[in-house]
Amino acid sequence: MSSTAGQVIRCRAAVAWEAGKPLVIEEVEVAPPQTNEVRVKILFTSLCHTDVYFWEAKNPLFPRIYGHEAGGIVESVGEGVTDLKPGDHVLPVFTGECKECAHCKSEESNMCDLLRINTDRGVMLNDGKSRFSINGRPIYHFVGTSTFSEYTVIHVGCLAKINPLAPLDKVCVLSCGISTGLGATLNVAKPAKGSTVAVFGLGAVGLAAAEGARIAGASRIIGVDLNSNRFKEAKKFGATEFVNPKDYNKPVQEVIAEMTNGGVDRSVECTGNIDAMISAFECVHDGWGVAVLVGVPHKDAVFKTHPMNLLNERTLKGTFFGNYKPRSDLPSVVEKYMSKVQ
Amino acid sequence: MSSTAGQVIRCRAAVAWEAGKPLVIEEVEVAPPQTNEVRVKILFTSLCHTDVYFWEAKNPLFPRIYGHEAGGIVESVGEGVTDLKPGDHVLPVFTGECKECAHCKSEESNMCDLLRINTDRGVMLNDGKSRFSINGRPIYHFVGTSTFSEYTVIHVGCLAKINPLAPLDKVCVLSCGISTGLGATLNVAKPAKGSTVAVFGLGAVGLAAAEGARIAGASRIIGVDLNSNRFKEAKKFGATEFVNPKDYNKPVQEVIAEMTNGGVDRSVECTGNIDAMISAFECVHDGWGVAVLVGVPHKDAVFKTHPMNLLNERTLKGTFFGNYKPRSDLPSVVEKYMSKVQ
Ligand SMILES: NC(=O)c1ccc[n+]([C@@H]2O[C@H](COP(=O)([O-])OP(=O)(O)OC[C@H]3O[C@@H](n4cnc5c(N)ncnc54)[C@H](O)[C@@H]3O)[C@@H](O)[C@H]2O)c1
Ligand SMILES: NC(=O)c1ccc[n+]([C@@H]2O[C@H](COP(=O)([O-])OP(=O)(O)OC[C@H]3O[C@@H](n4cnc5c(N)ncnc54)[C@H](O)[C@@H]3O)[C@@H](O)[C@H]2O)c1
Ligand SMILES: [Zn+2]
Ligand SMILES: [Zn+2]
Ligand SMILES: [Zn+2]
Ligand SMILES: [Zn+2]
Repeated sequence: MSSTAGQVIRCRAAVAWEAGKPLVIEEVEVAPPQTNEVRVKILFTSLCHTDVYFWEAKNPLFPRIYGHEAGGIVESVGEGVTDLKPGDHVLPVFTGECKECAHCKSEESNMCDLLRINTDRGVMLNDGKSRFSINGRPIYHFVGTSTFSEYTVIHVGCLAKINPLAPLDKVCVLSCGISTGLGATLNVAKPAKGSTVAVFGLGAVGLAAAEGARIAGASRIIGVDLNSNRFKEAKKFGATEFVNPKDYNKPVQEVIAEMTNGGVDRSVECTGNIDAMISAFECVHDGWGVAVLVGVPHKDAVFKTHPMNLLNERTLKGTFFGNYKPRSDLPSVVEKYMSKVQ
Repeated sequence: MSSTAGQVIRCRAAVAWEAGKPLVIEEVEVAPPQTNEVRVKILFTSLCHTDVYFWEAKNPLFPRIYGHEAGGIVESVGEGVTDLKPGDHVLPVFTGECKECAHCKSEESNMCDLLRINTDRGVMLNDGKSRFSINGRPIYHFVGTSTFSEYTVIHVGCLAKINPLAPLDKVCVLSCGISTGLGATLNVAKPAKGSTVAVFGLGAVGLAAAEGARIAGASRIIGVDLNSNRFKEAKKFGATEFVNPKDYNKPVQEVIAEMTNGGVDRSVECTGNIDAMISAFECVHDGWGVAVLVGVPHKDAVFKTHPMNLLNERTLKGTFFGNYKPRSDLPSVVEKYMSKVQ
């Protein structure tokens, strides 16, 4: 038992008081964890687009503590928590795994009914209240993680217990975009050894998707980005060729089909742009091509294609967090890093 | 060797002289098979929408002999044909299998590069000419089969050699729609035992898709058709529930989601109607649902959906001839019929 267990902890946190206004470092009070909750000391946290997106968006949940890519150590646990104990190293994850719902029991899904990402909820499930406050005023949580705080309270289902030897400053990024891209390729696109893979968008997610293709033994990994500056970095992650759609006056799917004798075997879209999603689908080979969508689209976006593109035996799938179940699968992603899998 | 081998055969055929005009039974001359070709005596042939569609359509290929769902017996074979000999029982298929192209070598595809359905070609591949004529005037072929003739010439790659004990009057229908529907479920949707399946469109193809779901052990098979008269027949093929979208004032995907606690595990679209395609996709459960499109859409149809429906881990696939490879797989479909597989 740590000496702080059961006590309110006073610590610093970066608080967003209003949409789009700079975060302010404040002293906050963090209540002890309740049933199925865990209080975590956050050692490292990084910034992801999703934090920025919701900080900018005018929703009513302010003040709020953002942050969801992080690594930390369990400080204390609430009632009913048996999987974790103080001192365990953990990665908080924005989406959870209750292990009991139909999704958690399905081999295919990681979209837990109870703990699936919910950007509209700013409170804990147990009592519908926040564990953060400043002078009694509640500060809202974000996607169940709120890692921009030295201490935070998280549902046990949103914490992956990882190898304590893993460097938290490095593996903290595995809790969102990197696993999303890696899993999109390894768990969903599943390119065969020697196959051709196109990756649309070479941000963090796309680089990880390219790395997944490299690990899977793809022979050609075609990186596609509107920003040619991304190409140098992508090479380090396995990309063998590059296409900037702006360099051509025909649709990029046609360019790729010409480069690959009819289309790539697999494509992974990591942009969030609807045109890239359509191109990523239409650039896969008929008969066996599989396209995987990862990017989070604009709410009014519409995916459009001629149904013949499907009837010619193409497959279109989407993935969420690379189809990894956070508690069951994330520890093995950390192990992959530890053993520097080639 | 049959006595007619190497000779021109005079026989009767139903000839379409003009688009949309009644077929006329004529005496035609059928030339001997050339390299990789087989001349087949057609014993039974049925009529499919695709024949009617191209007979109605104003394309320049008239006069023409339609017909592609049939059963027959090999009369003679051309040079290089080793897989078939006179007397073999065969099903002609509108799409072929050369066994040598990337598609034929792929485990996933049946869209042979050489012999894939081609409704624009009215001649044989070997010499670019027709084997049918009337007083020297060539009569065009249709999808490489032209089974509305007592004798026809077919590429060896478009003939499935089947069990000679199979009744040709019954199994002839396995050469198109029935295998398409059955394979769409068994080979592509692959419902698990106990799962829920929706079948859109209860024509011949949809009934076979329902039968596939029954064979796979689906616990609920929801038939969907705008024509309630189809429901009685569908029950015989395994459908357990029926939905007529006209009976509701909300989208049928919502009706099905409510009936099934969030969506069916698998859906198979067998209508050719674009709205049904979209509904069939949107009615599958998030996390693991798979929708399979079978119907041939209007050439201007556009498949539209919000990409979030994909990101929530749904899969959308299309299939052609139920993903069966005609020469490799069709014989086993005939065996399924022979052993009355439950
Ligand atoms: N599904 C999930 O679970 C999940 C998790 C994390 C992130 N994401 C999403 O993945 C996407 C990528 O995230 P990121 O952090 O790597 O973003 P990022 O902004 O760092 O990278 C996106 C890249 O895409 C490129 N791009 C944009 N439009 C393009 C187009 N039409 N064609 C080609 N390239 C284009 C941009 O130039 C950029 O380099 C985002 O939409 C993000 O929301 C999804
Ligand atoms: N992909 C292939 O290899 C392949 C092979 C053969 C047939 N097909 C296609 O399969 C489809 C079905 O063939 P069929 O012979 O069974 O046709 P059919 O006309 O006998 O049956 C179609 C059924 O769909 C129903 N329907 C139409 N619109 C609907 C809607 N919006 N919602 C619900 N039901 C609707 C009709 O009432 C009808 O009962 C056709 O498009 C055909 O071209 C495809
Ligand atoms: Zn993130
Ligand atoms: Zn769950
Ligand atoms: Zn047909
Ligand atoms: Zn082939």
